[in-house]
Amino acid sequence: MSIPSVKGTRDFYPEQMRLRNWIVDAWRRVSLRHGFEEYDAPIFEYLDLFTVKSGEEIAEQLFRFTDRGGRQLAIRPEITPSLARMVNAKIASLPRPIKWFSVPRLCRAENPQRGRLREFFQWNVDVIGPEDVLADAECIFVAADFLRELGLTPADVTVRIGSRPLITAALAGSGVPAERMDAALAVLDKRPKVSDEEFDRLAAGAGLSAAQVAALRGLQDCPAPEALPAATAGLRGAETPVRRLGELFGHLRRLGVADYCVLDLRVVRGLAYYTGIVYEVFDAGSQLRALAGGGRYDNLLEVLGGPAVPATGFGMGDVVLGILLEEKGKVPPHVRAQQVEFFVIDAEDGAFGKVVEVVGALRAAGRGAEFSYVRRPVGKQLKEANRRGAAKALLVRADGLSLKDLATGEQAETTLDRLLTRV
Amino acid sequence: MSIPSVKGTRDFYPEQMRLRNWIVDAWRRVSLRHGFEEYDAPIFEYLDLFTVKSGEEIAEQLFRFTDRGGRQLAIRPEITPSLARMVNAKIASLPRPIKWFSVPRLCRAENPQRGRLREFFQWNVDVIGPEDVLADAECIFVAADFLRELGLTPADVTVRIGSRPLITAALAGSGVPAERMDAALAVLDKRPKVSDEEFDRLAAGAGLSAAQVAALRGLQDCPAPEALPAATAGLRGAETPVRRLGELFGHLRRLGVADYCVLDLRVVRGLAYYTGIVYEVFDAGSQLRALAGGGRYDNLLEVLGGPAVPATGFGMGDVVLGILLEEKGKVPPHVRAQQVEFFVIDAEDGAFGKVVEVVGALRAAGRGAEFSYVRRPVGKQLKEANRRGAAKALLVRADGLSLKDLATGEQAETTLDRLLTRV
Repeated sequence: MSIPSVKGTRDFYPEQMRLRNWIVDAWRRVSLRHGFEEYDAPIFEYLDLFTVKSGEEIAEQLFRFTDRGGRQLAIRPEITPSLARMVNAKIASLPRPIKWFSVPRLCRAENPQRGRLREFFQWNVDVIGPEDVLADAECIFVAADFLRELGLTPADVTVRIGSRPLITAALAGSGVPAERMDAALAVLDKRPKVSDEEFDRLAAGAGLSAAQVAALRGLQDCPAPEALPAATAGLRGAETPVRRLGELFGHLRRLGVADYCVLDLRVVRGLAYYTGIVYEVFDAGSQLRALAGGGRYDNLLEVLGGPAVPATGFGMGDVVLGILLEEKGKVPPHVRAQQVEFFVIDAEDGAFGKVVEVVGALRAAGRGAEFSYVRRPVGKQLKEANRRGAAKALLVRADGLSLKDLATGEQAETTLDRLLTRV
Repeated sequence: MSIPSVKGTRDFYPEQMRLRNWIVDAWRRVSLRHGFEEYDAPIFEYLDLFTVKSGEEIAEQLFRFTDRGGRQLAIRPEITPSLARMVNAKIASLPRPIKWFSVPRLCRAENPQRGRLREFFQWNVDVIGPEDVLADAECIFVAADFLRELGLTPADVTVRIGSRPLITAALAGSGVPAERMDAALAVLDKRPKVSDEEFDRLAAGAGLSAAQVAALRGLQDCPAPEALPAATAGLRGAETPVRRLGELFGHLRRLGVADYCVLDLRVVRGLAYYTGIVYEVFDAGSQLRALAGGGRYDNLLEVLGGPAVPATGFGMGDVVLGILLEEKGKVPPHVRAQQVEFFVIDAEDGAFGKVVEVVGALRAAGRGAEFSYVRRPVGKQLKEANRRGAAKALLVRADGLSLKDLATGEQAETTLDRLLTRV
């Protein structure tokens, strides 16, 4: 009976797992050096947690199930609601700012496509507590610093930065009523992903007139934060978001990542809970889906039963990132191959018991050691050592050991004590 | 609207996450130095994969759901069936032995109890290909080496080693027919976990007579592999399992972990797919549930549609292990606290812009750097630096930098260049 894997999921054979670990290790390393602490939440939660405030698109993509008590559960499609739940539960005792990151496994019941799977990993970086735009700047800095760490330059990737309150002000100024604002924003988020005809249809459905869309387009084309004060002169509610965008770009310059960042007011994000600066990271040619997306969500903790605490953060998935790193040739060859320190070989009959002892002693001392289960000529064992990525072969005889460097071919006598004490 | 977490799941706040990472990092480090390569599979699979051969207990504990196409899926309660599926899919091209490990997140719909949760992490180590008992020895060695690495001694933990074919031979010898063997083994596995009355009831239900149980008990009390040949003299089918147990203990001695291991033929394991040597790891007083369990499962790949390929391995969960490490005081203090390299402070008015630049430069160079979002006196910022676990404070003035060691209190002038080039 042969049972396949489920479409849209991935098997991580060792080569793919090494690539995944290379990415995840870099996410962790960069997060820690930016002063973030790691957290995690359960892979499933009560269904309500995900339907309260994330918006319809996410709710439709949930894998739902019930436990034996009939309670409605769902596998997490994102971790932000769990983060808000966890922070709310300890809000009185957590020192602020709360700077946390996570690398959750997430599942969404989507139709699998290039760059979009039913199961993926997503780096999440959040700052909870400060209203200061410095927190938004720090999140964008972490994302850019990670991309740079993996060899992606401003010629490869761009952080496109927008502002929900600025777009909301423009929509309100052109007559969109407050009760239609969420729907209007959801339609604008779809704009770059659908055809013009489809967009017109969606816009009409959300009550957005062609004139309103055209007026907004003028603002959305504003190329740089310096041009914003003029472009929004007289627009009610624009002053604060414009000032915050200016401060943000100032911080990004001082942090040294301004060359990764551009103003792009077409970015509004799809999730319903965003309230401030929003951004998405794309490959330079925008050939792929977004690598990352985030922004400020000052109301989510309150909506989920906590106090009103400002928050900002982003998520970066592993799927599109992996495609881009492969396309740009940024995956170092050593990431793909197994690496073993010593391959221990019985160089004469009867030495195998000693091989097992040497392997045991090396591993117990923290050294990497491998050996062949099958007794074979030394030449064949050396071949296996090479195939397994061993740096050195250790040839064991009854009367001693010799160490062979498999890169240079150099060989010399040694002792187990020497191998165990050497750093 | 306040929504709680689901009973039996865990929130990993940073302190708990550091403990989890400390365990998982050690699992990875030990696996790699023993020559194992990491793999992973999806968190959900087709339901059938888990019901074919794992036994009833696992099937009852599945979180099941359907996708939009009405296909029956389940969250994985163990990873071995996925491993078998993955190996089967590439069996012709994978060089043997296949030595793989994984650290999957698993979910089981159980009633939460001490040491048993609905969601947990489980280290899995498997050797696929060799029939040689050396493969079983290597798996036990990896488990013992890991326990030793975390400071657990033979006074703290014991690997209890049994043999399914030997127990099967004894059951057959006392008249248990082949078709009742699986049920009889499942009952024997329950013996240490239920009351004597409950066991008698279960044994009767599986068709095991009191005389058969008593006869088996004599064999199960055999204290050491050396005593086995005498204890099984004349028992049909006992010779091979007895020889293999002898070989196993010989390998474990040579590998240097015999002091962690004892013969215990009461161990038969609950999963239906085991076929050979089986083992469980317990705390020395057996006050807790098993820390780990495993054994040989030579038929599983074939049952799941592949060729007949021998396999052996174990799983070790994080829940009981975590309880034991806490109880024995084996968690080093540094594991619990955040660690930051530099805490950067504006030591005079107007220096904050420079603080942001210095933080940006340090992090970009791979150094850990943190700072306060709020402008406050130097003394308060130093307090925050201490609270965040910073090793050093970097005081920024318009005309220079000074570095203060927060452990010794020593302070000296420095430059950014010097900090960035120092190793």
